[in-house]
Amino acid sequence: MALRTAEIIAVGSELLGPSRLDTNSLYISERLAGFGIELRVKSVVGDDRGDLAARLRQAVERVDVVVLTGGLGPTDDDLTRDVVAEVLERPMTIDESIVEQIRARFGRRSLTMPEVNRRQAMVPRGAIVLDNPNGTAPGLFIDHGGTVLVLLPGPPREMQPMFDRVCDGLLRDRAGDERVYRTSIFLTGLGESHVEQLAQPIYARWRDGASAVSTTILAAMGQVELHLSVRETDEARGLDVLDRVRAELLAVLGDHVYSTDGRLMEEVVGDVLKARGLTIAAAESCTGGLLMSRLTDVAGSSAYVRAGIVAYDNADKTALIGVAADLITRYGAVSEPVAVAMAEGIRARTGADVGVGITGIAGPGGGTPEKPVGMVVIAVMAPGRDAYVRTFNFLGARAQVKFQSTQAALDRVRRMVTDSR
Amino acid sequence: MALRTAEIIAVGSELLGPSRLDTNSLYISERLAGFGIELRVKSVVGDDRGDLAARLRQAVERVDVVVLTGGLGPTDDDLTRDVVAEVLERPMTIDESIVEQIRARFGRRSLTMPEVNRRQAMVPRGAIVLDNPNGTAPGLFIDHGGTVLVLLPGPPREMQPMFDRVCDGLLRDRAGDERVYRTSIFLTGLGESHVEQLAQPIYARWRDGASAVSTTILAAMGQVELHLSVRETDEARGLDVLDRVRAELLAVLGDHVYSTDGRLMEEVVGDVLKARGLTIAAAESCTGGLLMSRLTDVAGSSAYVRAGIVAYDNADKTALIGVAADLITRYGAVSEPVAVAMAEGIRARTGADVGVGITGIAGPGGGTPEKPVGMVVIAVMAPGRDAYVRTFNFLGARAQVKFQSTQAALDRVRRMVTDSR
Repeated sequence: MALRTAEIIAVGSELLGPSRLDTNSLYISERLAGFGIELRVKSVVGDDRGDLAARLRQAVERVDVVVLTGGLGPTDDDLTRDVVAEVLERPMTIDESIVEQIRARFGRRSLTMPEVNRRQAMVPRGAIVLDNPNGTAPGLFIDHGGTVLVLLPGPPREMQPMFDRVCDGLLRDRAGDERVYRTSIFLTGLGESHVEQLAQPIYARWRDGASAVSTTILAAMGQVELHLSVRETDEARGLDVLDRVRAELLAVLGDHVYSTDGRLMEEVVGDVLKARGLTIAAAESCTGGLLMSRLTDVAGSSAYVRAGIVAYDNADKTALIGVAADLITRYGAVSEPVAVAMAEGIRARTGADVGVGITGIAGPGGGTPEKPVGMVVIAVMAPGRDAYVRTFNFLGARAQVKFQSTQAALDRVRRMVTDSR
Repeated sequence: MALRTAEIIAVGSELLGPSRLDTNSLYISERLAGFGIELRVKSVVGDDRGDLAARLRQAVERVDVVVLTGGLGPTDDDLTRDVVAEVLERPMTIDESIVEQIRARFGRRSLTMPEVNRRQAMVPRGAIVLDNPNGTAPGLFIDHGGTVLVLLPGPPREMQPMFDRVCDGLLRDRAGDERVYRTSIFLTGLGESHVEQLAQPIYARWRDGASAVSTTILAAMGQVELHLSVRETDEARGLDVLDRVRAELLAVLGDHVYSTDGRLMEEVVGDVLKARGLTIAAAESCTGGLLMSRLTDVAGSSAYVRAGIVAYDNADKTALIGVAADLITRYGAVSEPVAVAMAEGIRARTGADVGVGITGIAGPGGGTPEKPVGMVVIAVMAPGRDAYVRTFNFLGARAQVKFQSTQAALDRVRRMVTDSR
């Protein structure tokens, strides 16, 4: 019988505090989804025998796959193995081959294995031991009369490769023939409800088709994401259906779409600049260096990022970027002529091909009735294109205004460079 | 009987996907901890009647307070009210006063309330209705024979003010006399194990004292955090104990500590600059604008941030910042003389009081045996102080190298400006 449903239980009191989140579950649910296994519940329990046993008992009754992370260390706090053995009523035995592996691991660092680590070699009867090349805690895989339990260590760098191997082997053998194929579309410059209105007729039709496509629409800061998935036994057919839905969506969403392969905006901009052999420089006021920081988050960006100037002060806009002082006096620092002069100035001073100028009011202070908080002017100059300048009114707190401004500026660079001859 | 234990259940299928995490639980657990109510389990369930009922039934049996978030909207997917009524075996009735409030809310935007919104006025018998000034979904508070259930809407801007009011009223009345008092110490420039070694003798002594203090040590990117808490019925005594532990810890941790009130590094630096009436400017290479962006994340930073220059290219280091070309030729772009020249240059060009220069290799490419990835040189000039310059070797990926570099630079600014006469 195919595995269809799952629960993830993260074990560890530290994950219940006000400053930590379990993120392993994101990785695990994504891999499970690839097999068409639906995550029904996820939970976090502390290092408490009663809480964990209660949680596990209910999970084993209700789902096909239970994935537990954490609690596999050598100390008394590490209860996962014990509680699993108790709930499944499987006696534990020590596996001397695991003891030897742990002993060897310590030996390679010229250390003697502490006796307490023998606990990590305790195995419930019938469990398959999963090697851990990145740590001492081995994992366990138990097929309990058709219900599968997977016990993984908590640290992501130990958990992920171990779970990958389980997915490629033990779990693949037990999952059905169906797989879930997915793709995503990232776009900016359109609101969520507008995207919904354009996309809804398309995904309503595909939802009811022979290969049902499900769609999720997510509004994130400065962008909207469409996530599409289809459940299919035949890979070629699954991918073909996704291609066709995507093509229809791209036709209505147009050049608002900046990525269909998960790349971030700053990566897409970097790729179009590199493809055309162009360099970029930016003059920033209200975004305070965030645009440059995003561009330089991309590995290899030194190939196309020339330089940037952050000028908060009007005198610096003149001295560093070359904006004429009388332009600022006449129109104000937050104005279209000044934004254009910033883009022109940074291009002239650095010799970069593409110049960006951003000036605005990030808030919370500094707004006026004529120039309220969130008002941001963006100018872009690119080879062979008319200068672009536009005044935006962004909503949200300071960080949101900064981010949305850089997103709009990067998107404009993407469009202008993509279209440039 | 005092409330001691809690479970949080977040309801919503979208929270089970691979790209979303429930963050409401962090806020809720922090507020609960203030009453000495310990979070035992947290879980996420989809919009499924059976899964939610099973989860809720177990929670009601095992803890004193169950907080549910989400699933209070008007559609068929919104099951929280129904399932709570079913599990507690309390019949639902419609509360016409809620209908009127929702109708009025729509009316204020000149809209007619859709009939489906009547669902939001369904209330299990005995429940106290919680107003929602930020949305249509009212919350509910149910005292079920000593077990408390709190139903809150999912969006944080609706959930937080509603839960604050519950904490200040209904929950405070039922919590015991004990409260948990907390403080935190943020420091940088020392590794976690080094901090542990210095702090451990102090918190071992306080852990076993009359007012037991518990301590958590967390290593975050570029900093170590110590979180202290004490459970007390007497507020003055609780705060006094925390003051004394903090004073002992500060004595051994010295000026590595940059914040004891939760302020971030960029806020602390802003505050010391403001207090002394000084301005700052930065010349960045490998951090690519991140230092300026962090400084300008702080509201009001235009009072002390002058300007910044990002120069990836060596020619721009000379043209924009005034670094002598032969310095770069002789020592290389990543060198102490160049970092100092960058700090000097930006100070000279902008007239800022404090100048920062950062040059290094963020990776993953660009490293050599002599100058490996993660090597970063930081220089700071401040009034009345000798120039500071130091070469660091940071570990981690590109984003980590960038962040740690800005953290070390900001910390040096903090120390030099604090000590400046």
